[in-house]
Amino acid sequence: MLGQMMTAPLLISSLIDHAAKYHGGSPIVSVNTTGGVEHTSWGEVAVNARRLGSALSKLGLEHQARCATIAWNNRRHLEIYFGTSGAGFVCHTINPRLFPEQLVYIINHAEDRVLFIDETFIPLIAALKDQLTALQHIVLMGPHNDAAAEQLPGVQFYDDLIATGDPEFEWPQFDENTASSLCYTSGTTGNPKGVLYSHRSTLLHSFAANTADALAITARDVVLPVVPMFHVNAWGVPYCAAMVGAHMVMPGPGLDGESLVKLIDTHRVTIALGVPTIWLGLLGHAKAAGSTLESLKRTVVGGSACPPSMMQQFREEYGVDTIHAWGMSEMSPLGSVNMPLAKHRDLDIDAQHRMRENQGRPPYGVELKIVDDEGHDLPWDGKTQGDLLVRGHWVLDSYFRMGDEAILQDGWFNTGDVATMDPDGYMTIRDRSKDIIKSGGEWISSVELENIAIAHPDLQDAAVVGVAHPKWDERPILVAVSAEGKTPSEADLLAFFDGKIAKWQVPDRVVFKDVLPRNATGKVLKRNLRDEFATVLTG
Amino acid sequence: MLGQMMTAPLLISSLIDHAAKYHGGSPIVSVNTTGGVEHTSWGEVAVNARRLGSALSKLGLEHQARCATIAWNNRRHLEIYFGTSGAGFVCHTINPRLFPEQLVYIINHAEDRVLFIDETFIPLIAALKDQLTALQHIVLMGPHNDAAAEQLPGVQFYDDLIATGDPEFEWPQFDENTASSLCYTSGTTGNPKGVLYSHRSTLLHSFAANTADALAITARDVVLPVVPMFHVNAWGVPYCAAMVGAHMVMPGPGLDGESLVKLIDTHRVTIALGVPTIWLGLLGHAKAAGSTLESLKRTVVGGSACPPSMMQQFREEYGVDTIHAWGMSEMSPLGSVNMPLAKHRDLDIDAQHRMRENQGRPPYGVELKIVDDEGHDLPWDGKTQGDLLVRGHWVLDSYFRMGDEAILQDGWFNTGDVATMDPDGYMTIRDRSKDIIKSGGEWISSVELENIAIAHPDLQDAAVVGVAHPKWDERPILVAVSAEGKTPSEADLLAFFDGKIAKWQVPDRVVFKDVLPRNATGKVLKRNLRDEFATVLTG
Repeated sequence: MLGQMMTAPLLISSLIDHAAKYHGGSPIVSVNTTGGVEHTSWGEVAVNARRLGSALSKLGLEHQARCATIAWNNRRHLEIYFGTSGAGFVCHTINPRLFPEQLVYIINHAEDRVLFIDETFIPLIAALKDQLTALQHIVLMGPHNDAAAEQLPGVQFYDDLIATGDPEFEWPQFDENTASSLCYTSGTTGNPKGVLYSHRSTLLHSFAANTADALAITARDVVLPVVPMFHVNAWGVPYCAAMVGAHMVMPGPGLDGESLVKLIDTHRVTIALGVPTIWLGLLGHAKAAGSTLESLKRTVVGGSACPPSMMQQFREEYGVDTIHAWGMSEMSPLGSVNMPLAKHRDLDIDAQHRMRENQGRPPYGVELKIVDDEGHDLPWDGKTQGDLLVRGHWVLDSYFRMGDEAILQDGWFNTGDVATMDPDGYMTIRDRSKDIIKSGGEWISSVELENIAIAHPDLQDAAVVGVAHPKWDERPILVAVSAEGKTPSEADLLAFFDGKIAKWQVPDRVVFKDVLPRNATGKVLKRNLRDEFATVLTG
Repeated sequence: MLGQMMTAPLLISSLIDHAAKYHGGSPIVSVNTTGGVEHTSWGEVAVNARRLGSALSKLGLEHQARCATIAWNNRRHLEIYFGTSGAGFVCHTINPRLFPEQLVYIINHAEDRVLFIDETFIPLIAALKDQLTALQHIVLMGPHNDAAAEQLPGVQFYDDLIATGDPEFEWPQFDENTASSLCYTSGTTGNPKGVLYSHRSTLLHSFAANTADALAITARDVVLPVVPMFHVNAWGVPYCAAMVGAHMVMPGPGLDGESLVKLIDTHRVTIALGVPTIWLGLLGHAKAAGSTLESLKRTVVGGSACPPSMMQQFREEYGVDTIHAWGMSEMSPLGSVNMPLAKHRDLDIDAQHRMRENQGRPPYGVELKIVDDEGHDLPWDGKTQGDLLVRGHWVLDSYFRMGDEAILQDGWFNTGDVATMDPDGYMTIRDRSKDIIKSGGEWISSVELENIAIAHPDLQDAAVVGVAHPKWDERPILVAVSAEGKTPSEADLLAFFDGKIAKWQVPDRVVFKDVLPRNATGKVLKRNLRDEFATVLTG
């Protein structure tokens, strides 16, 4: 017997309709590629999204055709998010920092029919264009532009394209499990792999992210997604913001500290979301510029572990609460959020701060567990480390066009992370399973050592990797990047670990580099470091 | 092309699983029928829910069998919510204040197989039992009790029943559109009608209610649902609380001001939900008892319009934010919530308070519109009144076992309310469409006049109805119930409207009664008043 309630599919088009109808006047500020600022609103974004959906349909694209973007966070990108998915196409966001051969691989693997690009990327695409075999339309995200037409013959212009569309276009209705969007993960090895989100997974993720114990975005918030729209749909923030009609500030290409401080102070941003590296730049500049970041109440930090020293600086110097979140492309991305429990109010203030440093607990809709090598559940004692497995409404089932390759373990997705769980369900990422250091049968977290090292005032960057050791199999070494003008000694850096960690976990050596090797999304390529320093303890 | 994400049905069992796994230790305080206090937790509630699901399955009940409750808000009732629905039965909550013939009608119409009752209701059920034709099991919600067994031969005992169940019972998996629960609405005319909720509608409603711009319940909240669990599933609060692991205080039968103040102060309640009448009692007692309701941060008020004077008292004397919400049984119930927008911060403080007085805006997932008699959309200007229509993921499609009777207008449900919408989508209920007073072609809201009258210090209760008038067709009269020991004059009461409303809207007469006639859910029976005073302006 079925319930007797209305049933309608959970579609992304219903999000933009809601934003337009109940929050049509809510402002969206957008920095364009050349630095100019545009003022628009959810109502106008919705009209352009409908125009775009209509225009793409008129081009004769097949249902579910992939429409790719290589673009910054701006209002046209927002329109494309809703216009493509809403009209039944798949919004395929691409990271411009990938190597050219990876870009070609991704665009061809996805069989993208349309490619929307910001002006920045004209030279990149001009060089690759002939290799993009399935592509039918390249669209520059802006008005008609003669210089661009010359550089990229055949290019179309976004503003002209949407002018051909119907502003009252009716969104098609279809199964909520239909594919809505596509992101390729850029691992540190192998070809990128596609995660194909559905309308349903996106909507349920948005609901969960907007609950008061997760990101808690409201119509009173001014949201600054610093996390790029080509990185797991900007963590889903555009959908979350549409769901509640939040104001948005789209920062365009300028993600340096100076630009961000100016955006926050000018547009009274209340919540900003991004990776720790970005906040380093922001904090550095705010101090120099004498800004108190007065409007800012919360930063959501994910992508990699947030150094406790950064949380402290946000809290003590700016009155900003740092919300530690964890997730991955395969999880839309939200896996856990660190928000306190009622009982934590009884802790002393330092303990309260310390408990905010781990990756937090899963919202309803996603589940976490840790298992041993045989897949058996491990205890939640805050100490036992195991492989972190996840499942839930917004977790991938299989990669796009990877055949029937079974990637799940008994219905769970293996994150490739090693973690501990405490009795309250708070999860701490200890390391990537391939980066954890196995020393004499004990596991040492490279992340924990890096968090300590990075707080040293003479260091600008730090990585810890395990290298071969004749007695202990593997031992940690610290790869250090000195701060400008500083020359810390090895002894000084190693002494810095004293009292912060067990003696046997302190790295055996320090080696120095000018810069750490990173992949397209900014992750340190530890494999390269392990290769480079493979024999430092044995040679 | 479908997305490649995991898909699992949205089932109520997954809510209690989540609460048990990630919030197992979160306390639940429960006042039982005789006033004793029990301390339990989400973990224990989950175990008992599994035991119950298992025990009911062993009884041989068919899938989707209706299991009814006539009970207060207590922990066993919470276990029944999750245990019945989770195991694939339908949790049918019944209002004990209905007339006995309505109870018999409802139980037989639903074909309830099991009836769970609190001790209070033994005499009621003993008297009706022989008329309950489909009923197979009556279960007293408590331990074995010889006196009860004598009063109600054949009665079973909840604690014995669940002892036969498996604490590790595996919840069955089924279609998320399966019926989960059933409430009958008690209108002011005709037989009660059943609203049959589904697992999906319940889960989506919970997500929406938990967003930060709606009820915003978190794991740090101590939630006191004063709204009965037999009234639209206590507004969905048990599901919302399980979703985030909130602490709960279940108040049992004692909903008087003294009991509630004591519960709030003893258990540090942060958010309480109920109808205005309840808060009148609470505020009266808090003042007398010298309580500052220190822990209480928010009250959610629904069921009928909250008098502005009450919101002011909560705000000014107790620092409590009153959140005005609107909904109905047919909407699970959440239709709208009044939370401010960013721009309201720029209003002067009085204007900020005034804008909190209307019924608010719909969360994503439900839509509102106002239409004229022909069903045409009316403008959102804050003035034009029209019939309020709704649709959405948790709005009913048809009543239970009412055949194919088409009750929707073009896919929308007519709420029977008359409302205005303002340009920002804030909705104000003006009246029930059958209660609005049509005076010389103009509409007068009885609710608005009642809100004014009730603030008069000499009145305890007030209703306004339209009665026949020789010139204006209909004119409003005030039906007044004097406060104890007070004898306000008609002239004095009418003068109280001066300056608060247009002169032509002031009632023509005041009539006095000792008490207002109300139905089982406390709604004033205006039809009776219209009949009683039909000729007061013409006779």
